[in-house]
Amino acid sequence: MIRSDIIAAISTPPGKGGVALIRLSGEGAIGLAEKFFSAASKKSIKDYPLRTQIYGYVTDGERTLDDGMLTCFGAGASYTGEETVEITCHGGILITELVLARVLKAGARVAEAGEFTRRAFLNGRLSLSDAESIGLLLEAKSEEQIALAGKDSRDRLSEKILAISKKMTELLGSVYARIDYPDEDLGDYTDGEMLDMLQSIGDELDRLIATYRTGHSIAEGIDTAIIGRPNVGKSSLYNLLCRRDAAIVTDIAGTTRDVLEETVTLGRVTLRLADTAGIREDSTDPVEMIGIERSRLRLGRCELLLAVIDASEGADAELAASASSSTAAKIAIYNKVDKIAGDFSPECPMGFDRAIAVSAVASPEEAREAIRLAVEELFIDGRIEVGADAVISSARQRAELAEAREAISAAAEAIRSGVFADAASSDVEIALGAISRVDGRAVSEAVVDNIFSRFCVGK
Amino acid sequence: MIRSDIIAAISTPPGKGGVALIRLSGEGAIGLAEKFFSAASKKSIKDYPLRTQIYGYVTDGERTLDDGMLTCFGAGASYTGEETVEITCHGGILITELVLARVLKAGARVAEAGEFTRRAFLNGRLSLSDAESIGLLLEAKSEEQIALAGKDSRDRLSEKILAISKKMTELLGSVYARIDYPDEDLGDYTDGEMLDMLQSIGDELDRLIATYRTGHSIAEGIDTAIIGRPNVGKSSLYNLLCRRDAAIVTDIAGTTRDVLEETVTLGRVTLRLADTAGIREDSTDPVEMIGIERSRLRLGRCELLLAVIDASEGADAELAASASSSTAAKIAIYNKVDKIAGDFSPECPMGFDRAIAVSAVASPEEAREAIRLAVEELFIDGRIEVGADAVISSARQRAELAEAREAISAAAEAIRSGVFADAASSDVEIALGAISRVDGRAVSEAVVDNIFSRFCVGK
Repeated sequence: MIRSDIIAAISTPPGKGGVALIRLSGEGAIGLAEKFFSAASKKSIKDYPLRTQIYGYVTDGERTLDDGMLTCFGAGASYTGEETVEITCHGGILITELVLARVLKAGARVAEAGEFTRRAFLNGRLSLSDAESIGLLLEAKSEEQIALAGKDSRDRLSEKILAISKKMTELLGSVYARIDYPDEDLGDYTDGEMLDMLQSIGDELDRLIATYRTGHSIAEGIDTAIIGRPNVGKSSLYNLLCRRDAAIVTDIAGTTRDVLEETVTLGRVTLRLADTAGIREDSTDPVEMIGIERSRLRLGRCELLLAVIDASEGADAELAASASSSTAAKIAIYNKVDKIAGDFSPECPMGFDRAIAVSAVASPEEAREAIRLAVEELFIDGRIEVGADAVISSARQRAELAEAREAISAAAEAIRSGVFADAASSDVEIALGAISRVDGRAVSEAVVDNIFSRFCVGK
Repeated sequence: MIRSDIIAAISTPPGKGGVALIRLSGEGAIGLAEKFFSAASKKSIKDYPLRTQIYGYVTDGERTLDDGMLTCFGAGASYTGEETVEITCHGGILITELVLARVLKAGARVAEAGEFTRRAFLNGRLSLSDAESIGLLLEAKSEEQIALAGKDSRDRLSEKILAISKKMTELLGSVYARIDYPDEDLGDYTDGEMLDMLQSIGDELDRLIATYRTGHSIAEGIDTAIIGRPNVGKSSLYNLLCRRDAAIVTDIAGTTRDVLEETVTLGRVTLRLADTAGIREDSTDPVEMIGIERSRLRLGRCELLLAVIDASEGADAELAASASSSTAAKIAIYNKVDKIAGDFSPECPMGFDRAIAVSAVASPEEAREAIRLAVEELFIDGRIEVGADAVISSARQRAELAEAREAISAAAEAIRSGVFADAASSDVEIALGAISRVDGRAVSEAVVDNIFSRFCVGK
C-alpha cells in the first residue's frame, strides 16, 4: 500500500438517474461507513459477510438522508485492492451530492481523477496497459475501440508480454548461471542457441511493434489534416466526415479561418480531424492570414493528409511542396468530379500514397466510403484480428517495446562479436526492464525467482 | 405479481463515468443472467448466496464484452419485490449500451419509464406516496425538497396515515359489532364516544390537509405569473429570480412576447415562474397581441401573482381588475424605487396580500430577498418542520384526504341526527377507502383483520 487515506467519489456519471454509486477506498473505509450508514436490520455492517449488499440508511445524526444498499469489500478483494465500501443510493443530482458530502464529513476526502484506478495499479490489481485500456473503454465511440480495450484484448496483450518476458528471463538465468558457476556447466544454452532465442524474441517484438499503427488508428485516432487551395471543398469533406454541418460552407474563398477539430469514427478507424484554412499566398485578410499560418503548423505534426484538389483544376505545385515536407500518409482527393464531363481517373501526385475521385456535395456517402477504404488500406493491418490478437495502441507502449527491441539487437551483436556473456546479459536486462514497463509491473522479483528456481537444490 | 416478464434498463444516469448499473427484474432473471455472465471463479452464479457481489465477465459467445460485478436478489427481497439481477459494469457511453444490448439479446425487454418503481408498488414494496416522493427526490434541486421527499418524511406520513386509518378501523369494528350482535353489547363505544372519535379523526385530517400548501410549495412548486404594464421591469425581476439573463430586457415596451417559463428555487419554496407579455390595450403588433392574450390565460390558473408596478406611476385600475378575477395569492411589487426621491412606502392595493418596494436593477439581491420573505410568509407554515412532520405535497393526496374529511363529517352528522349506526359506518368506510388510497395500499384486509380480532374466540 502506498497511500492509505480514505478517498471517496461518485463513480456513476453525473446527472439524473434512478441510481448512483458512491465508492470509498482506503484502510478503515468500513469503520468509517459505520458512522453514516445504519443497516435496516439494526445489525452492525461488520456482522455481514464481505461482498454482501446490505439495505439501510445514510444518516446524519438523527436525520436520514437517503436509503440504499451498502457493500463492503476486504483489502485484496476489491477493485483498488484496498478496503472498499460501495453505496448505491438514489441518483438525483442534489441527493447524490448530499450523500457524498455526508461521507466526506465522516472523514473521507474527495478522490482525484483516476485515483481509484491508480491505486488499483499501485496495488498490483491492474497493469498499466489495463489502466490505459479502461480509459479507452470509457471514451469508446466505436465497437472496434471496445474490442481493442476489452477484457479479451487486454488478456491477449498481457499473455504476449508475459511470454516474451519469460523467454528473456530464461535466457538471463542461463547467462547468470554461466557467469556465477562457470565450472558447473549450469548454462543450458550455447552461443548459437542464445542467438536463436534472441532472434525469436526480436521477431516477436517486431510483430508486436507492428500492431501499433493499427491499434493507434483505432484507439487514439489518426491525427488528420484536410488541406488544399481555397474553395476546393475542404469544409464540405470535413462536414461529411463529421456527419453534420460542423464547418460553415460558402462559395466564398477564405470562409474557414479557425482550425476546426473533431474526433470522428470512419469505419474501423478514428480520425482526429482538422479542417484548416485554405492555404493561399495572396490573402490580405489578417484573420485569414493567421488561419493560414496555423494550417501550416498543423501539417508538421499530422499522420494523415487529406489533400483536396479541384478535379477540374488538377494538383498544383504548391500542394505537392507542402505535402513533401510531411512524413504523414497522404491521400489526394480529387473533388467535384461530377462537374467534369466524361470519365475521370485520379492521378496519384508525387509522394502521395493514394488518389481517389469524389463528389463531396453530389454523392457524400460514396465520397465517405471511398475515403474510408483508402484510410483503412493505409492504417489497418488486415491480418490483425482486433479483440483476439495482442495489439498495442499507445505511443508509450511502442516506445518501451522499441527500447526492448534495440537492446535485444545489441545483445545479439555482443554475442556475435564474442564478448563475455555478461555484456549480453546487461542488454537483455535492459530489454526485460523495458518490456516489463509495458505492463508497468515490477520485474526484479520475477527475474530473481526464475534464476533461483534453476538452482533450487540448496546451493 | 401482476407481470412477470423480465425487464432491463441502465439505472444510472446516461453519460461517461467510471461505473454504470444495469438492472433486470422479473421471474427467471437469475437464470437469464447465466446466459451472458460468467463468474471469474468458474462457479455458477446460482452457487453464490443471494445479495453477494460476484466478479466476472459479460460474454457473447466466445467474446467478452466487459468485466464487472453481478448481484442476484431473490423475489421478496429486492427493490421491485421480484427476482432481480444487478450488473455493475464500466460506465462508458457505448460500452454500457453494448452490455444492455447483450442482456436484451438474452431475452429481457427494455423497461418502460418508471416500470421498476411501478412493479415495486404493485408488489407492495412501496406505497404510492413513497413512489411520488422518489420522483421528487430524483428531481430535487433544494435541500428542502430532499428533506420533504426523504426517508424520514415518508415514514412520518406513513405513520400518520396508519394512525388515522387505525382509529377509523377501530370505530368501524365497534359499529359492525353493534350491528351484527346487537344483544351482546360488543360495541365498545357510545354515540357520544363515537362523535368524539370522529371529531378527533376530523381534526387530524384537517391538520394534514393544511400541510398541503407548504408541501406543494416546496415540492411541486407554486404556479407563479409576473404581471404588470409594459416596461415596468417584469423581465428584470424574472431574470433576478432565475439568477441568469433568461429574458431579453430592453427599454422598449413589448420586448417580451412569448410566455417564458422556468422553475426556480427561492429560499424554501419552488416557483414555476412565467414571465408574460405586458398587458396593454393599445398594442397593434400582432405577435405582441397574441402574447398579451396568452398572459391573460395564464392568469386564470396561477397560484401566485407577482404584480409589478412602476413606483413612480403607482397601481392602475386595469391591474387591480385583472388581479381581482384571480384566486391566486397576490404580491404587489413596486419597482424602480431608486428613481424616487425620498422615502417610499408601498401601499397594498385592494385584494392584494402583500406590498413590497424594490429596485430590481439597482439592488437585485435586496429585491430577491424581499420577494422571498413575502412568498414564504404566504406559502410556508412556519409551525411545520419539514423532514420531521407528516406533510403532503401532491394534489392527489390532498383530494383523497379531502374526500375522507367530508365522509367523516357526514358520519358525525348521521350519528347526531340519530340514524341507525350502519348509515354512519358506510361513511367511515368511504373515509377509510379514501385515506388508504393516499398510500395506495389495499385496505379491505386490514378492516377484516381488525374486526375479527375483536371476536377471536371461535364465534
